[in-house]
Amino acid sequence: MADDAVLNDLGALGRQARRAQRILALASTVEKNAALDSMAHRLRKLAPDIVDANARDVSRAKEAGLRDSLIDRLRLDSSRIDAIAESIFAIRALADPVGQVMAEWQRPNGLRIARVRVPIGVIGVIFESRPNVAADAGALAIKSGNAVILRGGSDSLNSTHAIVAALKQGLTDAGLPAEAVSAVSTRDRAAVGLMLSGLDGTIDVLVPRGGKSLVARVESEARIPVLSHLEGICHVYVHKDADMAKASAICLNSKMRRTGVCGAAETLLIDRAALPRCRPIILGLLAAGCEIRGTPEIVGLDPRVLPASEPDWSTEYLDAILSVGVVEGISEAIEHIRRHGSQHTDAIVTEDLETAERFLREVDSALVLHNASTQFADGGEFGFGAEIGIATGRLHARGPVGLEQLTTYKYQLRGEGQIRP
Amino acid sequence: MADDAVLNDLGALGRQARRAQRILALASTVEKNAALDSMAHRLRKLAPDIVDANARDVSRAKEAGLRDSLIDRLRLDSSRIDAIAESIFAIRALADPVGQVMAEWQRPNGLRIARVRVPIGVIGVIFESRPNVAADAGALAIKSGNAVILRGGSDSLNSTHAIVAALKQGLTDAGLPAEAVSAVSTRDRAAVGLMLSGLDGTIDVLVPRGGKSLVARVESEARIPVLSHLEGICHVYVHKDADMAKASAICLNSKMRRTGVCGAAETLLIDRAALPRCRPIILGLLAAGCEIRGTPEIVGLDPRVLPASEPDWSTEYLDAILSVGVVEGISEAIEHIRRHGSQHTDAIVTEDLETAERFLREVDSALVLHNASTQFADGGEFGFGAEIGIATGRLHARGPVGLEQLTTYKYQLRGEGQIRP
Repeated sequence: MADDAVLNDLGALGRQARRAQRILALASTVEKNAALDSMAHRLRKLAPDIVDANARDVSRAKEAGLRDSLIDRLRLDSSRIDAIAESIFAIRALADPVGQVMAEWQRPNGLRIARVRVPIGVIGVIFESRPNVAADAGALAIKSGNAVILRGGSDSLNSTHAIVAALKQGLTDAGLPAEAVSAVSTRDRAAVGLMLSGLDGTIDVLVPRGGKSLVARVESEARIPVLSHLEGICHVYVHKDADMAKASAICLNSKMRRTGVCGAAETLLIDRAALPRCRPIILGLLAAGCEIRGTPEIVGLDPRVLPASEPDWSTEYLDAILSVGVVEGISEAIEHIRRHGSQHTDAIVTEDLETAERFLREVDSALVLHNASTQFADGGEFGFGAEIGIATGRLHARGPVGLEQLTTYKYQLRGEGQIRP
Repeated sequence: MADDAVLNDLGALGRQARRAQRILALASTVEKNAALDSMAHRLRKLAPDIVDANARDVSRAKEAGLRDSLIDRLRLDSSRIDAIAESIFAIRALADPVGQVMAEWQRPNGLRIARVRVPIGVIGVIFESRPNVAADAGALAIKSGNAVILRGGSDSLNSTHAIVAALKQGLTDAGLPAEAVSAVSTRDRAAVGLMLSGLDGTIDVLVPRGGKSLVARVESEARIPVLSHLEGICHVYVHKDADMAKASAICLNSKMRRTGVCGAAETLLIDRAALPRCRPIILGLLAAGCEIRGTPEIVGLDPRVLPASEPDWSTEYLDAILSVGVVEGISEAIEHIRRHGSQHTDAIVTEDLETAERFLREVDSALVLHNASTQFADGGEFGFGAEIGIATGRLHARGPVGLEQLTTYKYQLRGEGQIRP
């Protein structure tokens, strides 16, 4: 009964994580920082073991015929491990959100009410390929007083375990429970199903990190809250009153800085009145190697532009491809984004402040930008130091999920004997 | 095919609510307040119709043999309708959370980032008996820029519809879409199942209001986020350094002010060292008509005390019954609350500030109180004006769910052409 064994193992993991989390929730900033320090040092010290474990994953992946790009994501060397340790030091340097007073007021009866940040509890992270997610998620969880249960892709099983072993040693060094960070040790896919059910109440929230099919499965099957985004169909809208130099730079950067990230632009919308002046934007993108799929007006701007078809407006290319459409003005732009967007990140380029403010107000995405690149959709760029992902759901957290977003709150009421009339 | 018809009706309701919500989300405070004013006036004007509709529900409920207490909850007269209208005026007077800037900062590259409150979207409310929930939920949703789909108990179908008709007229008067408030018009229980599935993505969050079996069903079957509490097993812990006058008043009020509310105390924990001095607390409760079920030490205080059995520690009586136990100190009290509580509301009575702060920090409930009655677990008592419920989940909102808790946020980024290196 493999399933029963998996169930028992995971059940124990969940209960241990829950117990450990109670201690983490009350640990001081000094204790948590000491653990993070030690986690980073242990990662460096154990780098040879991690590289060995990773080499086993890589050779297994090659045998299985995994694509080169995925093998590259999977591969760890000592400089990548060094970078992982550095990012733990960076998380250590961030302010501890736990215990922060978010709001405070006094009632007419003298009762003082404070809304205070507390950790969420146990975070389940389901991820693919990149084993560094284990370290980032572990460090963010610890700093915010949570425990984390990691389930990496089966491709990275050995690497994930080697990293988690180092993190556990770091926790032990600092006198905190090693069970606050754990990894699911089976390739059995039933493990994911168990995590989606919340492991009998021991996981409070799930964060899926990976391709669309993983996120889609988690979003549709999870029985507990999920912080995630399915896709980033991000738009840049060039308004008729745009500064064309800014527009060119923003369009090029939004699309081409990195094409595989969720904040990369997938669609450019251009005001008809600005169309002739926008030709350099299209030429610049073409020159940078971007394929353009446009409406007939855009096709007319350059023979290299291909005609767009209906699915292009709803496609997250994650590649050097951009769909380009023409709109009659801001209302049509907003309506296009509402219909085809993914409530992730959308930008307007204009010098007209009133139009910019209307766009910022009416476009209901997690991030809306005026005169800046969509590639700022990143916790680091927000000053969050690190993020565990970006959320496009409507509850709890939207946008980059950093330390603060891994907390919830409770109310502390301080009285002198008040009773209710 | 009754199910298909229900599905089609509800599907249309959901799509209309979604469209209406887009308009509500962008409505000004003035427009929303005008609608609330008008909703209250229409309720008063239509009071005779509402009383008629309610009379049909009441006579149907009597025929069905509904308990008297439930019939009393169901009954509406003109003074109760007046009170409902008053509570809409009170919600109108509250600050509009939409558009509030929750945080604002500037990045080294000059990018200005603002976290701004926006409505959640479409709120589904599933409730029982009390038809006034329809008006409260409708008014809270409108003020916070949301739409609401209401599903009252089948007992109150006519009353709910009469109330919703008045609310819709109020919206129309103010030029806002009437579809922002709607009620499910069928007694078919399949309707609840459809709402639990999120109505094809048109409901963003569910708020169940009612008995434990309703809430349990919603919590276990919902495929979308739920803001709720299953039960309120609230504790008062009398520490050895308590002021006994305060302790007596707080215990009596926490239990007996109203025994049927979720913030009513169900268990009293007493420090062994304070036991002899606590006898007046027990006598006061007995004199007020409270049944006491205690451990042997408590039974020894008065012959009327009954022995407690294990299930008493995990029972939400919602009645004039209190379980009373003895603990060796704060650690045991905290552990008892962790094991038996429902993370709702728990209080400590003590004059020792250090002990109080430890309790406030370590008890992980939505509300923790020092020297005050657990019956303060109420949005009105927090100054929220009104609440749609109290949440004990760990994400998005904990404690009273008022206007702010019916919002989420987005980020607005303002630049001057910034691109990402």
